[in-house]
Amino acid sequence: MDKPTLPKGTRDFGPAQMAKRQFIFASIRSIFQKFGFLPLETPAMENLSTLTGKYGEEGDQLLFKILNSGDFLKDVPADKLVARDSRSITFDIAEKGLRYDLTVPFARYVVMNRHEITFPFKRYQIQPVWRADRPQKGRYREFYQCDADVVGTDSLFCEVEIILMIREAFAALGITDYSIKINHRGVLGGLADLAGAGDQQTSLFVAIDKLDKIGEEKVKEELVARGFSPNSLTPVFQLLNAQGTTADKLALLDGTFSQSAAGQKGIAELRQMLDLLRAYGASEDHVEFDVALARGLSYYTGCIFEVKIHNVAIGSVCGGGRYDNLTAVFDGKEKSSGVGISFGIDRIYDAMEELQLFPARTQISTKVLIAHFDAASHSYGLGVLRALREAGIASEIYPDESKLKKQLEYADRKLIPYTIVIGPDEVRTGQLTLKVMGTGEQQALPITDIIHRVRA
Amino acid sequence: MDKPTLPKGTRDFGPAQMAKRQFIFASIRSIFQKFGFLPLETPAMENLSTLTGKYGEEGDQLLFKILNSGDFLKDVPADKLVARDSRSITFDIAEKGLRYDLTVPFARYVVMNRHEITFPFKRYQIQPVWRADRPQKGRYREFYQCDADVVGTDSLFCEVEIILMIREAFAALGITDYSIKINHRGVLGGLADLAGAGDQQTSLFVAIDKLDKIGEEKVKEELVARGFSPNSLTPVFQLLNAQGTTADKLALLDGTFSQSAAGQKGIAELRQMLDLLRAYGASEDHVEFDVALARGLSYYTGCIFEVKIHNVAIGSVCGGGRYDNLTAVFDGKEKSSGVGISFGIDRIYDAMEELQLFPARTQISTKVLIAHFDAASHSYGLGVLRALREAGIASEIYPDESKLKKQLEYADRKLIPYTIVIGPDEVRTGQLTLKVMGTGEQQALPITDIIHRVRA
Repeated sequence: MDKPTLPKGTRDFGPAQMAKRQFIFASIRSIFQKFGFLPLETPAMENLSTLTGKYGEEGDQLLFKILNSGDFLKDVPADKLVARDSRSITFDIAEKGLRYDLTVPFARYVVMNRHEITFPFKRYQIQPVWRADRPQKGRYREFYQCDADVVGTDSLFCEVEIILMIREAFAALGITDYSIKINHRGVLGGLADLAGAGDQQTSLFVAIDKLDKIGEEKVKEELVARGFSPNSLTPVFQLLNAQGTTADKLALLDGTFSQSAAGQKGIAELRQMLDLLRAYGASEDHVEFDVALARGLSYYTGCIFEVKIHNVAIGSVCGGGRYDNLTAVFDGKEKSSGVGISFGIDRIYDAMEELQLFPARTQISTKVLIAHFDAASHSYGLGVLRALREAGIASEIYPDESKLKKQLEYADRKLIPYTIVIGPDEVRTGQLTLKVMGTGEQQALPITDIIHRVRA
Repeated sequence: MDKPTLPKGTRDFGPAQMAKRQFIFASIRSIFQKFGFLPLETPAMENLSTLTGKYGEEGDQLLFKILNSGDFLKDVPADKLVARDSRSITFDIAEKGLRYDLTVPFARYVVMNRHEITFPFKRYQIQPVWRADRPQKGRYREFYQCDADVVGTDSLFCEVEIILMIREAFAALGITDYSIKINHRGVLGGLADLAGAGDQQTSLFVAIDKLDKIGEEKVKEELVARGFSPNSLTPVFQLLNAQGTTADKLALLDGTFSQSAAGQKGIAELRQMLDLLRAYGASEDHVEFDVALARGLSYYTGCIFEVKIHNVAIGSVCGGGRYDNLTAVFDGKEKSSGVGISFGIDRIYDAMEELQLFPARTQISTKVLIAHFDAASHSYGLGVLRALREAGIASEIYPDESKLKKQLEYADRKLIPYTIVIGPDEVRTGQLTLKVMGTGEQQALPITDIIHRVRA
């Protein structure tokens, strides 16, 4: 039989990785809860009709589709089969697909439960998503998203809370060197007005977004090739290159955007966010107003966010923004404005590994191993084990009668910090040998003292 | 646009359900960890070659298969397409499938990581699995399994620890009225020897397993129809109907199984388990030796377990047993004997709902809502919010300027226990109105006292 393998782009998480991942999940979850967000989980599978058309044509290609059960070919038109038209047959033989992100399932949930939900609805969701992308460093076919969204309110304090949550999360994770880049669709609209972009807005934003990758000259060339006049681009790049504090940049924009309603709205909202941050009593630390930040997703309508960790070659680790109408993709009737953030757990993990930020204590492990010399001490050890567990101490007994060396190796490899060694003397006296695995220190103690010591 | 729906047999878990589910998960996880089990997670998708042939022919039919990406029909032989042979085409157009249980992925992980794993390997795994079963009450197409296994040891203390973990888990969940049914494949082998079953062993076990559903007469009829002689069945049913303690039943079997090597092995191992339970200092509470317990899965070779909660019409909520060789399905070379247990979270959830066992405290919620009268008190409230959060209190401010009634309704519906109401007076004096939502009690207090009160 061939040795089994994993599907491309997927991973197992063994105990050591799980401990680190659980540390990240628990840190972020507790911050979401502290800010009043409540948990939601949706199924891995959604109807394809729920998923398709929501992520652009490329996204539709990247959806994992689930083959219908039973005789799935029965009703496929013969001409399609003969033509081997894979793309059009897909929807005849697959009704369901795997979740591609957490936003569309969330929107579906809101539409289906609109009348039971208390708005403003603050929900968080931590689940894997699947994309049939070409796997590469930092890009997997199964990865976790970790989202928090508020829907049903226009309050800009929700944007401020996103900044606060990111900072608390990163503080909890020990990440100190990073930027929370913010921008506003209105500011981008102002740039478009300035450049006379007309219906070429998207081209302008896509080009601008590449500024820090390919540089100003290349971006200009691209835009001129698309019909932008070099003259109209001059004031745009003056703004893109603006330095200084957020307030400085906003003042500069204010002068330039006097004719742009979109630009004025963006400036006003960003100023209001700074005011709210101040009223809360918080600093602007890590916040970087980046006029060039565009983000691909066209459904953002207000503020947009992106977080980069410095000194690691990993793309953005969080992204989000304000949208006018979450549920528009399903149902245009009732507007549900909201704002959300998504933490890219797998990238945060990779960055923390690279920067060696995981605390040693993330290793989940047994606290005490009971090792034994013979059948009698093994049996005696069972009572010791019960006493430890009754005291709430994670503990185990080596299950087989093996050489002591092998038992101690087991403790070492499992990173168990304490071993209790029991032989005939210990059984007779009740004075057990406690061995501290890190230092090799040994001490004879009764079980009550060991419990006291290990708990401390 | 049509209102979106959920795929058949799948569910969303909103905040209230999530809180209860997290209570179950956290309770069981902490017990697994206390017993020295370490976490593992495997991908939702496995290669179909990993999954097929492991669950019998019916299981293969119930696997969800994932359609290959791109032009999946390109290399399908034309004759298969013309013949519309769905079953044989499946493997041409689908290379991957969704996890059907946690045992096969665990076995695959052990085979792939044999040289890095520290044996005996105690792992737990809590993840969803998917089966294309016909949905019905208590049976879903996506549901969680919650497994703990030890591989790489024959020690019967591992079986004992399964009993201990089940009891601790149920105690933590508040489930008091249940039975842990145990039996041993050897005991079943003894019955087969007694009945002269020969190669009809499986028929015998399948029939016996139905004893409490269809009754003794029907089981006998079925067996006689399959060629068992009524005479040979008489002593079998004497044993199946045996009453008394585990020790009583074992004594009875001992006399009857004198000629059965399998039977003797089963008796010896069950006796040893009782001895180990005693050495640990634990009772036999909830343990019920059930000679008729067979369980379907043929890979069990030693002790088998099943847990039933009394007074609910829900099948078994846990099952497990000892297997000789976990990795035999992949690689016969190195034997890996082990024993495992699987908690059926969804059924436990349903049973706890029916028995009203969820404690009120499972509701995850914000502790304090800040409500406000106007823009000035809203702004003042932001500083109050920061103070609460800095004290570690989950809290939120109503984000919009709305009528107080609406803000209080929000707190009510979200089960937030405290509201701080801030108006012009409160802003002026710093004496904030704390409202206890359950009782309606109101008190004017400075923020430091409120923090003290809410924390208590």
